[in-house]
Amino acid sequence: MKWLNTIRQPEDLRKLSMEQLNELAAEIRQRIIEVVGKNGGHLASNLGVTELTLALHYCFDFRRDRLLWDVGHQCYPHKLLSGRHERFDSLRKAGGVSGFPEPAESEYDLFKVGHAGTAIATAVGLARGDQALGLDRRIVALVGDASIVNGLSFEGLNQAGLLNRQFLVVLNDNNWGIAPTQGAMAEYLAKFRTSTLYEEVKQRAQRVLSCVPLVGKPVAGAIGAIRDGIKATVSPHQIFEQMGFMCVGPVQGHDVAHLIELLQLLGGVQHPVLLHVHTNKGQGADFATAEPGRFHSPRPFYIESGGKVTIQKGSGKSWTAAFSDALTELAAEDDRIFALTAGMPDGTGLDKFAKAYPKRFLDVGIAESAAVDMAAGMARAGLRPIVAVYSTFLQRAFDQVFQEASLQGLPVIFCMDRAGLVGGDGAVHHGFLDVSYLRGLPGMILVAPADEPELKAALRFALRQNQPVAIRYPRADVPEPMGEAPPFELGQSRLAHPGRDVTILAYGATVSHALDAAELLATDHVSAQVINARFAKPVDTRMLANVLSAGHPVITVEDHSLAGGFGSAVLEAAQELRLPTEHILRLGMPVDRFIPQGTRAGQLAECGIDAAGIAAAVQQELEQLRTAPARAVAERNVSTLHVSPTPPE
Amino acid sequence: MKWLNTIRQPEDLRKLSMEQLNELAAEIRQRIIEVVGKNGGHLASNLGVTELTLALHYCFDFRRDRLLWDVGHQCYPHKLLSGRHERFDSLRKAGGVSGFPEPAESEYDLFKVGHAGTAIATAVGLARGDQALGLDRRIVALVGDASIVNGLSFEGLNQAGLLNRQFLVVLNDNNWGIAPTQGAMAEYLAKFRTSTLYEEVKQRAQRVLSCVPLVGKPVAGAIGAIRDGIKATVSPHQIFEQMGFMCVGPVQGHDVAHLIELLQLLGGVQHPVLLHVHTNKGQGADFATAEPGRFHSPRPFYIESGGKVTIQKGSGKSWTAAFSDALTELAAEDDRIFALTAGMPDGTGLDKFAKAYPKRFLDVGIAESAAVDMAAGMARAGLRPIVAVYSTFLQRAFDQVFQEASLQGLPVIFCMDRAGLVGGDGAVHHGFLDVSYLRGLPGMILVAPADEPELKAALRFALRQNQPVAIRYPRADVPEPMGEAPPFELGQSRLAHPGRDVTILAYGATVSHALDAAELLATDHVSAQVINARFAKPVDTRMLANVLSAGHPVITVEDHSLAGGFGSAVLEAAQELRLPTEHILRLGMPVDRFIPQGTRAGQLAECGIDAAGIAAAVQQELEQLRTAPARAVAERNVSTLHVSPTPPE
Repeated sequence: MKWLNTIRQPEDLRKLSMEQLNELAAEIRQRIIEVVGKNGGHLASNLGVTELTLALHYCFDFRRDRLLWDVGHQCYPHKLLSGRHERFDSLRKAGGVSGFPEPAESEYDLFKVGHAGTAIATAVGLARGDQALGLDRRIVALVGDASIVNGLSFEGLNQAGLLNRQFLVVLNDNNWGIAPTQGAMAEYLAKFRTSTLYEEVKQRAQRVLSCVPLVGKPVAGAIGAIRDGIKATVSPHQIFEQMGFMCVGPVQGHDVAHLIELLQLLGGVQHPVLLHVHTNKGQGADFATAEPGRFHSPRPFYIESGGKVTIQKGSGKSWTAAFSDALTELAAEDDRIFALTAGMPDGTGLDKFAKAYPKRFLDVGIAESAAVDMAAGMARAGLRPIVAVYSTFLQRAFDQVFQEASLQGLPVIFCMDRAGLVGGDGAVHHGFLDVSYLRGLPGMILVAPADEPELKAALRFALRQNQPVAIRYPRADVPEPMGEAPPFELGQSRLAHPGRDVTILAYGATVSHALDAAELLATDHVSAQVINARFAKPVDTRMLANVLSAGHPVITVEDHSLAGGFGSAVLEAAQELRLPTEHILRLGMPVDRFIPQGTRAGQLAECGIDAAGIAAAVQQELEQLRTAPARAVAERNVSTLHVSPTPPE
Repeated sequence: MKWLNTIRQPEDLRKLSMEQLNELAAEIRQRIIEVVGKNGGHLASNLGVTELTLALHYCFDFRRDRLLWDVGHQCYPHKLLSGRHERFDSLRKAGGVSGFPEPAESEYDLFKVGHAGTAIATAVGLARGDQALGLDRRIVALVGDASIVNGLSFEGLNQAGLLNRQFLVVLNDNNWGIAPTQGAMAEYLAKFRTSTLYEEVKQRAQRVLSCVPLVGKPVAGAIGAIRDGIKATVSPHQIFEQMGFMCVGPVQGHDVAHLIELLQLLGGVQHPVLLHVHTNKGQGADFATAEPGRFHSPRPFYIESGGKVTIQKGSGKSWTAAFSDALTELAAEDDRIFALTAGMPDGTGLDKFAKAYPKRFLDVGIAESAAVDMAAGMARAGLRPIVAVYSTFLQRAFDQVFQEASLQGLPVIFCMDRAGLVGGDGAVHHGFLDVSYLRGLPGMILVAPADEPELKAALRFALRQNQPVAIRYPRADVPEPMGEAPPFELGQSRLAHPGRDVTILAYGATVSHALDAAELLATDHVSAQVINARFAKPVDTRMLANVLSAGHPVITVEDHSLAGGFGSAVLEAAQELRLPTEHILRLGMPVDRFIPQGTRAGQLAECGIDAAGIAAAVQQELEQLRTAPARAVAERNVSTLHVSPTPPE
């Protein structure tokens, strides 16, 4: 890493010649391929933005100026250039470099992001804030063509177009999101691909650049000349121009010298500018450009001597694959099934379904709100739409789940992958709130299967309902099946393991951890009953009445926040039944802290919801009960005590 | 109502001549002004779409075809034409006609809506659903210019542009939402206003129409001719055309004959079409066109003989006005304050602030997601942004509150008006979930003031925090102040009324109901302690420890859903402290039912959270405690009982 080792901070880039910058780009790619090969992570998108990132850091000073990433998973070259080259081996590991922008790591990172479409609106806020505070900082938002179709990007453009100051949006157009970009806008952008002559654009730009005054002080006429010069041979960007932007491009995104020339010029324009850049997802690695979807965010991989690349297989079958199989099988029986995804055909497992049933599948791009409303429309028409989405991304469609599904009582089925702790992606992607935010929606049924047969049974159950159902499962492998799954019956739990001394009441995938905990406890002669709750809404009240009146500890377990989650639903039901709750212990994700990146196993342990954590909690509860069995009862009897609240201060 | 009385169903319209339709339009306006004058409701927008609605029902059969309303508050003429003329006096009253589309009322209403931007995406879903099921129905989505700038509309357009079938979007452009439309798109649409010559467009259209083949069977050439003919004299609609739409207009929206001609032709085009219609918000009532903001959704009003219109004043001061005063006052002390609204300057009370501090105010239009991200950007820059928003609409920005505010730990202040039951607007607008969905966000502080001095103290508190704070208050008048408000201290409640026999633990505006309940109870010799919780997060655990160990009933009261709300937070805290919860009773909105429209007082009574309901609940609890004091303790002792869950079936 001859050149990369010389870059302690971005300004060191300016010491390199253009030729050296190109060599540096190659080193950056090598480093990324090496680390992602070991740790897994986002690959193809990072290879695609290498020159663009070099050019941005060459032309701006992002300690003072503002660089906002959209989605953020393409920030690896940026991290390598802004002081994190040495620590980069720790990418996505516990305590290591985050796979997303992370202000705690570097002053060059402004916002932790992982959800798409936010950069432009946030940048407008920064611009308006700086303006109000009299600060003069330049702003760049880097947005992919998959993010630009998100409604929030559009809302941001709508606000940005009115700014009367420098404001640069770089549209990194690789014609791919995580999957090929969808929708009319994608077709619109694609038109530029066929009609562009980079060389001609470049030559014209060269002529224009040479006659433009100093960077930072363009005059109106010069702006016009730039525009005319650079894009004279390409289709006009009507959409963005009508939104108030001056548009430049498309330009070739792997020519670092040309990008630097352009950015030096455009960086000084006191007007909203959109620079349309064409990049190749996976540039510099043939295996990645050949399969940008597969190498979007691969598991660890190794490159054989012949150049063949093998991605490590998981040890087992993922919940995603289990969902994919179940849905594809059920679709053969039920013509009403129609599956939608918001830009995640691979991640949700719908790619397989789409191959089997291309006419019953739709990828709407990164537009979760539209996906939910479209599903509601389909349900109203008579279909049984399945919205396959990551739990964390369904947050973006919360209001549509409310208005178009719950309020109408329509049978839309939400299949929430990545529910719970997600491992290396960390806090931006944990699915930690779905139970909390969906539970209050009238008519919504919340289900979580405990193993693969249960996932299929849960889907069958959902298809029988005439109301919305949300099914959650984690980014993990399915556990050993507990045997054939009896059909799901509304609000009924399932006994997973009999026991006497304690009840572990687990929701979803944590049932397998509870069963393992029961095994651990058995070696200590503790007989633990494990109940597979199956439903967070409605909760099985008959079961609750039984276990709570027993007086022994009841441990609820969920791969979800403790605020308003499954355990909270149990407390609510217990209180309504006037059952004692003092012997309940709720295990789950902490309320006021984000769990950082790491392995999923490590995160489960951190939250105490792996087998060891559950077993330890049980032991502690039993110990407390042994030492202070009469506490609660005793306190209860002090019923005539006069009580005052905390005095006001 | 000579003609309106003859319209039993929309098809009766076709029996009328054009002249008679114009008379009918006048009758519809008269009826709407009369009923809204009595009941309050949405006025100006309904007057604006009268001819458009007549023309749509004249040309389509919406028992078979699909008509989708965006926002939906402009559906009054539609309701009068589709069998609800006689019941229309009951508009917005309990058990009466809803102020929004309501499928339970009529087969002509497909979706209950009240939130903006959803119609196009839902319509695309209906179109795809019909297609999959082999149904041949025409689809019309009616969208206002204030809704079209919402990101979800854009996501919908992006999907619609790819449809290869009939799909009509009518853009009802009155250059107003609830306030004047904001953003670059608004400026874009405004260009058409200045350059349009309706008469010329109309004459050209006439010529084209006469040479087009049968309705429903246009050929490619004819479509081109229509397009060229109708819009030859106006600017091209680049944005929509690039999204795949054939665009027509702008046309004059109060010429019913011309609208019918156009719709008959366009209704048969087998391609996505956008018909751009210019209407006047408030058309037909000078007082409404003069002040479309004031007459967007007025309280009841009366028209004096001289034509002067007086809107009834509320009996007291609204929470909205109290917020407006408090913020405007605090802004004088704190330069960092910057206020944002998403299309609701009047409804949130920011209109007054905007007049005092025009440079510290921004209305981003109906774009809640962008508003939150912009606020986060401003907070990052160093400002203290205040996002003033209705609780129900903050649902649209849930993911941005998560990622841009909570995850970054940025001090954005959310002022949630209309939190709780909203009266006549009914289920589409209740702010019933904000505590549930915000409570799980790490770092988020949840506050609710009990009276006007507390609202100001809560704002002062929020401005001192370095993390996000959400403050909720209802659509109601502020109660009599409880005296000067002591400063808010994180997680500390305030004693509102001392008492012995029972504790009423109330959150926010329900404190005043609890105090009234305490008065009622005092006449029955029950001494009720009332605690003003102030915080739903963090809950005052010291206070809880006191009141829950007393053994007397503790009644939590909240104007919010019982699922995951304030009472649930109390249960969670109690359980963590291992305090008994059997004597807790939680009052609030029911979990699995939407509270229908009515007066707010009636809705509070229905939920049992008015003074009488709270007092009755207290009496019942005390009665139960008298008759079965030892129940829980007795059950506790059956601790060795073997317990089984509900057997699987």
